[in-house]
Amino acid sequence: MKIVILPDSFKESLDATNVANAIHKGFHSVFPNAEYHLLPLADGGEGTVQALIASNGGDVETINVTGPLSETVQAKIAFSKDNKTAFIEMAEACGLHLVPLEKRDPLQTTSFGVGELILHAIERGASELIVGVGGSSTNDGGIGMAQALGYQFFDQNGREIECNGEALLKVASMSDKNKSPRLDQVKITIAADVVNPLIGRNGATYIFGPQKGLSADQLATMDEAMGNFYQITDLYLNKSVSEIPGSGAGGGMGAGLMLFANASIKKGIELVLDQLNVKEVCKDADIVIVGEGRIDGQTIYGKAPIGAAACAPANAKVIAICGSIGDGIEELYKHGIDAIFPTIPAILPIEDIMKNAFENIERTARNIAVLLK
Amino acid sequence: MKIVILPDSFKESLDATNVANAIHKGFHSVFPNAEYHLLPLADGGEGTVQALIASNGGDVETINVTGPLSETVQAKIAFSKDNKTAFIEMAEACGLHLVPLEKRDPLQTTSFGVGELILHAIERGASELIVGVGGSSTNDGGIGMAQALGYQFFDQNGREIECNGEALLKVASMSDKNKSPRLDQVKITIAADVVNPLIGRNGATYIFGPQKGLSADQLATMDEAMGNFYQITDLYLNKSVSEIPGSGAGGGMGAGLMLFANASIKKGIELVLDQLNVKEVCKDADIVIVGEGRIDGQTIYGKAPIGAAACAPANAKVIAICGSIGDGIEELYKHGIDAIFPTIPAILPIEDIMKNAFENIERTARNIAVLLK
Repeated sequence: MKIVILPDSFKESLDATNVANAIHKGFHSVFPNAEYHLLPLADGGEGTVQALIASNGGDVETINVTGPLSETVQAKIAFSKDNKTAFIEMAEACGLHLVPLEKRDPLQTTSFGVGELILHAIERGASELIVGVGGSSTNDGGIGMAQALGYQFFDQNGREIECNGEALLKVASMSDKNKSPRLDQVKITIAADVVNPLIGRNGATYIFGPQKGLSADQLATMDEAMGNFYQITDLYLNKSVSEIPGSGAGGGMGAGLMLFANASIKKGIELVLDQLNVKEVCKDADIVIVGEGRIDGQTIYGKAPIGAAACAPANAKVIAICGSIGDGIEELYKHGIDAIFPTIPAILPIEDIMKNAFENIERTARNIAVLLK
Repeated sequence: MKIVILPDSFKESLDATNVANAIHKGFHSVFPNAEYHLLPLADGGEGTVQALIASNGGDVETINVTGPLSETVQAKIAFSKDNKTAFIEMAEACGLHLVPLEKRDPLQTTSFGVGELILHAIERGASELIVGVGGSSTNDGGIGMAQALGYQFFDQNGREIECNGEALLKVASMSDKNKSPRLDQVKITIAADVVNPLIGRNGATYIFGPQKGLSADQLATMDEAMGNFYQITDLYLNKSVSEIPGSGAGGGMGAGLMLFANASIKKGIELVLDQLNVKEVCKDADIVIVGEGRIDGQTIYGKAPIGAAACAPANAKVIAICGSIGDGIEELYKHGIDAIFPTIPAILPIEDIMKNAFENIERTARNIAVLLK
């Protein structure tokens, strides 16, 4: 019997690797002789680099870059075995987890460190870069990254601007004359976990700004500033990116990478499934286990469990294990997932449930396996 | 395929019949052509009469009896098809659910109505009575019931006493000269859901008194009064019952029925399983589903799921569906239950979870069935 275990992380609770390990432990106690393949997934947000590198078996390097509040942070960057592909995760340089709650302020945070990671990857010889965009503390439209890549931005008095979220309010002109020439030697692909456009009611500022620290009365102003910035830069670079789905990912980093680094964009989960060769691994699977922290009717829109389920052969049982479920999970039964099991044991404080996620997943997996025996 | 569905109720949320219906609905959507047997269980507490009569197909009658606060209440009493066996549930006459929270006071409440139900059953021709003891608002040691049966109790001045919990503090002597002679014509069996003795730290007063409204500083006094009462009555009737496991059930009703009505006592779940002929029904079952509101390591001590699981044939899959699980469920795997699934979908207010119990059970059953397909 072949069992493929393909979970996403349980956000803020357990990373995808440990979710996979917990599922494996539960199944292994019932099927000790089965053939197991563990492929922890990610959908472009946090954990994407980890997921890609975990199965590619390349190198992970840690380098110092500029953090979200211009402090120095240690960011991981990964390379494929042949060093040709670099895996970068935006959140490593400017993730929300790097900014304490009381300091969260997208006017102050910058994506500068993402540009430094890109330059480092190119210097180290990578010709293809995959950049996971999501989980960021920034809403700077990628201006910080652009500055790191050599672009310059000026206010209406022609003075060069320090590039954080607030800069979007001031930019009047730009220049690419100091742009790093090495940028033209590489192909960059964005792995995005959302399809939001850059601006408007569904855009970066309105949808993700509040959780990063923008107050309700700042949203209209910052959304307008983001729009103005991209009018100026689109015009200068003769390209329009702000309508492309995913341009709003990572506080506008989607748009920034497309405009300033000529990146193309893919749904994170599709890119990860491709890179991990999941379809091939699943080919002759008898059981495919997917998972995510929370599953509800919205999960059918590009989330990891549905993408993973689509890689399963028709005769395999596809089972989702999740932390909790919400309304509308019946939709998933029509999208390749046969059965769904939440792992919450009882009404307990959320801290307890998160702390015991491994045991809760292992227990649920064991009970599922017993039924399949 | 033969599927036997044997759940207890999910307390304060869904009665056993509806739990069984929800499980059936979930399974039926996956196995429309299976042979189903629904046998909702009870362990001697609330719901026992309903469980016994639901499958025996006898009559249920509603009669007026004295309620816990001496008001009139409508109590159900059930009879087997041949009218020879009556099913009485103590809680029908003096259950905790009949007393509003602010009026809960075991000094005032009486089990008088239980005696009235017993006399009614005998008058109607029953020769065997099964009395479910549990879920009561009383801690009167059955003195109220005894009075209804014709026993008399006197204070130290020889005045006859009104028989509620407070009476236990006053009784100095008793008489059985007016005892109903019809009592000697019947065999009474107690179905108890607990094995607590009458008095002491594990007795009726200490363990169940607080939830019925006794304050901490009343416990010692009432426990002592209960002991004194049974010293006097044991002596008079030349019989000792207070050490028998279950004598503390129903606020001492276990002892009361044994002493004043010559009853024998059985574990509720065993009596229910016998009456419902569960072992025979399960004989050739492929799948046996058990269930209870909460399952934890303590469930192995005489609760419905373990009793039901013991009726399943060795080659059947035995699956427990429950509201929530607690510590130590691994013990159940060694006691005939193959797999256990809680039905809580997410961390939600307890009211929401209870309100949606049917849907949560149905969903879980459906997902389990898919795995078994």
